[in-house]
Amino acid sequence: MKVVIVGGVAGGASAAARARRLSEDAEIVLIERGPDVSFANCGLPYYIGGTIAERDKLLVVKPDLLRTRLNLDVRVRSSVEAIDRHGKTVRIRDLASDREYVESYDKLILAPGASPLRPPIPGIDLPGVETLRNLQDMDRIKGLLDAGVKQAVVVGAGFIGLEMVENLVRLGVSATVVELQDQVLPPLDKELTTPLASALAAQGVSLHLGESAEGFEKSADGLIVRLKSGAELPAQLVALGIGVRPENKLAVDAGLDVGPRGGIRVNEELQTSDPDIYAVGDAIEVKDVVLGGPTQIPLAGPANRQGRIAADNIFGRASTYRGTQGTAIVGLFGLTAAMTGASEKALQRSERPYHKVYVHPGNHAGYYPGAEQMTLKLLFAPESGRILGAQGVGGAGVDKRIDVLAVAIQAGLTVFDLEEMELAYAPQFGSAKDPINMAGFVGAGLLRDDHPQIDVASLMALPPAGRPFLLDVRTSKEHAAGNIPGSVNIPLDELRSRLAELPAAQEIAAYCKVGQRGYLATRILRQRGLPAKNVSGGYTTYRHYFPEAAVD
Amino acid sequence: MKVVIVGGVAGGASAAARARRLSEDAEIVLIERGPDVSFANCGLPYYIGGTIAERDKLLVVKPDLLRTRLNLDVRVRSSVEAIDRHGKTVRIRDLASDREYVESYDKLILAPGASPLRPPIPGIDLPGVETLRNLQDMDRIKGLLDAGVKQAVVVGAGFIGLEMVENLVRLGVSATVVELQDQVLPPLDKELTTPLASALAAQGVSLHLGESAEGFEKSADGLIVRLKSGAELPAQLVALGIGVRPENKLAVDAGLDVGPRGGIRVNEELQTSDPDIYAVGDAIEVKDVVLGGPTQIPLAGPANRQGRIAADNIFGRASTYRGTQGTAIVGLFGLTAAMTGASEKALQRSERPYHKVYVHPGNHAGYYPGAEQMTLKLLFAPESGRILGAQGVGGAGVDKRIDVLAVAIQAGLTVFDLEEMELAYAPQFGSAKDPINMAGFVGAGLLRDDHPQIDVASLMALPPAGRPFLLDVRTSKEHAAGNIPGSVNIPLDELRSRLAELPAAQEIAAYCKVGQRGYLATRILRQRGLPAKNVSGGYTTYRHYFPEAAVD
Repeated sequence: MKVVIVGGVAGGASAAARARRLSEDAEIVLIERGPDVSFANCGLPYYIGGTIAERDKLLVVKPDLLRTRLNLDVRVRSSVEAIDRHGKTVRIRDLASDREYVESYDKLILAPGASPLRPPIPGIDLPGVETLRNLQDMDRIKGLLDAGVKQAVVVGAGFIGLEMVENLVRLGVSATVVELQDQVLPPLDKELTTPLASALAAQGVSLHLGESAEGFEKSADGLIVRLKSGAELPAQLVALGIGVRPENKLAVDAGLDVGPRGGIRVNEELQTSDPDIYAVGDAIEVKDVVLGGPTQIPLAGPANRQGRIAADNIFGRASTYRGTQGTAIVGLFGLTAAMTGASEKALQRSERPYHKVYVHPGNHAGYYPGAEQMTLKLLFAPESGRILGAQGVGGAGVDKRIDVLAVAIQAGLTVFDLEEMELAYAPQFGSAKDPINMAGFVGAGLLRDDHPQIDVASLMALPPAGRPFLLDVRTSKEHAAGNIPGSVNIPLDELRSRLAELPAAQEIAAYCKVGQRGYLATRILRQRGLPAKNVSGGYTTYRHYFPEAAVD
Repeated sequence: MKVVIVGGVAGGASAAARARRLSEDAEIVLIERGPDVSFANCGLPYYIGGTIAERDKLLVVKPDLLRTRLNLDVRVRSSVEAIDRHGKTVRIRDLASDREYVESYDKLILAPGASPLRPPIPGIDLPGVETLRNLQDMDRIKGLLDAGVKQAVVVGAGFIGLEMVENLVRLGVSATVVELQDQVLPPLDKELTTPLASALAAQGVSLHLGESAEGFEKSADGLIVRLKSGAELPAQLVALGIGVRPENKLAVDAGLDVGPRGGIRVNEELQTSDPDIYAVGDAIEVKDVVLGGPTQIPLAGPANRQGRIAADNIFGRASTYRGTQGTAIVGLFGLTAAMTGASEKALQRSERPYHKVYVHPGNHAGYYPGAEQMTLKLLFAPESGRILGAQGVGGAGVDKRIDVLAVAIQAGLTVFDLEEMELAYAPQFGSAKDPINMAGFVGAGLLRDDHPQIDVASLMALPPAGRPFLLDVRTSKEHAAGNIPGSVNIPLDELRSRLAELPAAQEIAAYCKVGQRGYLATRILRQRGLPAKNVSGGYTTYRHYFPEAAVD
């Protein structure tokens, strides 16, 4: 068996290592265009920012080790130029000598990855307008920074864009972010990202949302970034992080099927439309495990697992890839934002019915010092309660809860299962009622109709005259410090004795700080026959939607 | 509906709050023997040690708030003396006035908790021989410490015992631990607890394992603790943490069924043998979700959920308790130890077949600074691969992985599912191949026979002459720094060229530092027809079993 693997980073390196473990006799040729294999691409921004001090640490496995330990035929600085599917060969160019030669294969694995988008806007190829994919990009950016960058513009506020911003700020560079969407971190729903926008502002980062770069020009002091609005931003470094596209040229030229967004089409065994050719990693289309359809989600974990699975199938072990659910996380100035499964906007786009609830618990018992608040948004199916997606933003412990919910999605669990989850509790690690249990209680209460809720977005989308009676059940002091416009304050502990102040027939939307007192108020009112709902997540959720001074 | 609830802490307070949310009209009487309801019993050791500075923080909800907000009839310092099941009344003693009176009920919920064991050994009732269950116990212990305790003896090295030790050390008290078992933290398997024992030693704590206190005597300097071995330990404070027993007297006197270990018997609806009487919390027998039989596991999370469920059933909402899986966690001098599901010894006691594997991954990517190593032990069913239990010890991130595995157990997932888990990865939070995936790979590899393994315990239990050929595939430097006695060193990268040095027919047990190189060695050797196995978790697991200098 001779296996040729195109691409030596996450998926390709995993496939090669797995192939060798399964067969000592196989001939395994690993072709990588760059000088490095198996490097830590997720670490690049942190080397730029100095958190990772040694460049060598990013070279997780060097070519020589793959040769010695795994007996792989590793060929770096080598580019696969074409596939001859009929003859089962690839044409390889040795970039050092510029010599081309032909290599045969029994099975071919494509792991070319995805390349950063560089849209054809004027000046995009000027020095200093950079993308970050590999160590060479990183070295170039670091070189610019070492030479003295005062101002940087980051175009695109996705995961990599935000990591770049954090690291630029760490270096003392004045950073500006330009993002086409009206929010940072577009994979998440907007209201979950407002704390990130606030954190950027608090760090002095200038944020241009709903805005795009239309051109780059040289200036005396470096570059000028011209925005669609006409604004001009001076910079000595522009970092583009506006997405990636599958490196599919080889596949397309060879006539392999690709999807509408360019991802190489594979079956569950990760075979392309040619059964002797497999494809893995950021270049492929995968099944969205929640929504069912094809999608493209570039993630390191799935790429690694796909590499294993392709090798398994080649060496006779039946193995299928289940799909990707899009679990992702980013750290930003001490905040963590993470998601798994479908976002609300993805559910809306695919016209899937859903419910959503918000909770704002501490990461551990409040009586133990150092508890940090988080916001969890849970999306679930209306009847079964099956969990469709979750997002979190906050301090410590967000990663843990998103991982728990990622498993819950994988296992097909429901909000009723979240109620019963038995998680590890000691006061420095969690709560007897963990944030996960709380989310389950709130979601299950909604489905059981014990706890009818209205979400802030639906509430505020109504014309003021058409809104429910807005009842703030917090204390008068809390109410005075900021409230939803038009709300009337009756503190929870006075509610039973002040029912006469409520309208007899109008729907009531009760709210408190995070939803707990609002829940109790809802229970009290409904049992008196009043049509009350709780505003999910209370005033804290409201402030996620309206982070500035409250508006009507 | 009139509901009387006996016990106002975790399960009782939860039941009362839930009952009120379900019914504004119900009469809900909450009877608590002590002066406090709903206090943070898991925080008591941390107030003693000073981490929690304000005593008031431990009073999570005060009686007055329950009265005002939940309209509960809260009666503290009141003891329920007897139940008249026929007349559906309880006899209550007001401890302040010593007056007794009778209260009727429609439904009764017993939530009396469990009391610390105080075995009848001489001197057990001397002042200074303390247990820690409530704020009064805590105040007494704190009073002793404030008056000047130089030496303390902690009897019992379970969860609470270890938390006491940590807090005593924090206060500068010289602490000695006496534990009947031959390990600390007996709910866990011994080899997972040796890092805790080492941490205790490093903090100057003297540890007496396989030892028990046989008597306490007054001395000029406080107390003398006399051990079974004859040793005598001076102390001004003895903290007993040797377990708890259900407070079942009321139930037993009323003729309710109790189990062999004293737990009040309940059905899935948490009804006792009297359908008008429910019982919840540490006083009851629960179903062991992994082993199936009845068990008693005192935990705050389950107690809270049981309170909800009992109230749900009383107010007409069908709700069942699924059982307890024993998820528990403790922090000790920066280490975390946690478990979920069945331990190996529990599986052995119940004669259930199982496999076990060990992994020793970092909590996040090694190239990002600050990664901390952990040890995970995974127990799973031989054929299905269903996860039966997990334990972890190490630094940051142990809590997250045990929570993920707790959900996996709840959902009935297998090691094959762990392979595919898509968890949140950025270099400061995890790894592209998360510790959970690694554990899955190793477990699934064992079941698929791609990765035959031998565990350290089985290996070392063999007579030296009967052991497999012990092959250390680490570097010669690593080998020289410490190895399994009798092992021969052939570094992995030389293995393919030195096969002639291996015995032709003898079984080979390969090992490395954590199991990864040993795995590759096993694959190489088996493909050459040599009967090789990998020592699960490698030398690191070995050192968990044999933490001292290696012995034969």
